[in-house]
Amino acid sequence: MEKRYYPYEDFLDDTKSLTQKIDWKFDTIIPIARGGFSLAHLLGEYYNIREVYSINTIGYDDTIKLESVKVFNIPELGEAKNVLIVDDIVDSGDTLVEVLKVLRQAYPNVNFKTAALFYKKSAKIAPDWYVKEADKWIEFFWTEDIKRKI
Amino acid sequence: MEKRYYPYEDFLDDTKSLTQKIDWKFDTIIPIARGGFSLAHLLGEYYNIREVYSINTIGYDDTIKLESVKVFNIPELGEAKNVLIVDDIVDSGDTLVEVLKVLRQAYPNVNFKTAALFYKKSAKIAPDWYVKEADKWIEFFWTEDIKRKI
Repeated sequence: MEKRYYPYEDFLDDTKSLTQKIDWKFDTIIPIARGGFSLAHLLGEYYNIREVYSINTIGYDDTIKLESVKVFNIPELGEAKNVLIVDDIVDSGDTLVEVLKVLRQAYPNVNFKTAALFYKKSAKIAPDWYVKEADKWIEFFWTEDIKRKI
Repeated sequence: MEKRYYPYEDFLDDTKSLTQKIDWKFDTIIPIARGGFSLAHLLGEYYNIREVYSINTIGYDDTIKLESVKVFNIPELGEAKNVLIVDDIVDSGDTLVEVLKVLRQAYPNVNFKTAALFYKKSAKIAPDWYVKEADKWIEFFWTEDIKRKI
């Protein structure tokens, strides 16, 4: 698949775009590890939300897709009412579907909505808000930059 | 206090420096929310560690220091043996001391070490590894950039 490097500057612009699209008040942000971490960091700062928790999944082994997604490290949501789940990209949608299922089972009285920078049309679920459709393999700066030699 | 803007490029360089300083094998990374999130994201990619969990504290209310630090959202550490706790800055050290105390009580058989980008000499605890001493108020890019107008 064709690759596209995604630098910090684009991430910053897209995160700003995402904040303009999200027309919902939320009190908690849950990034899906690791992809959602940088996005959650900026959104937490932007919205001044300290309740930024993480959730983890296993499902990919590099580029080989496993059959199922296992969700673990489910956060204690405490007083949360409206929770925004964030990830870098909704690709197949498997991860997001499973995360939503697990969180809604654990917290039936909490509202969950979802946001991502990228979304693939072929995914089985669309996030409530996203910035760009992905038609290439995205090489995110947080993956690429740190591996380059100093 | 004098302020210093800390851009993404410096963060990237310093994170690379940090990886050169850390002479320890670890299997899990715990960022202290929110400050440690971007650092944990890059370190997780660099070391190919998927076990990146978060922990949360309350103790500052903007720039007003409260008397105590409350630690919450303590992660399930599962099979973890060696855990690196990361934060952007060790300032007073109150947060790191409390996080270490709570995690060591919860997981007495796990080894915890600590890393940060910045460290203030006046802190009551030094991280095991850090990159720079802070003598100014650091304005991190994740706080500043997202608040600028598009």
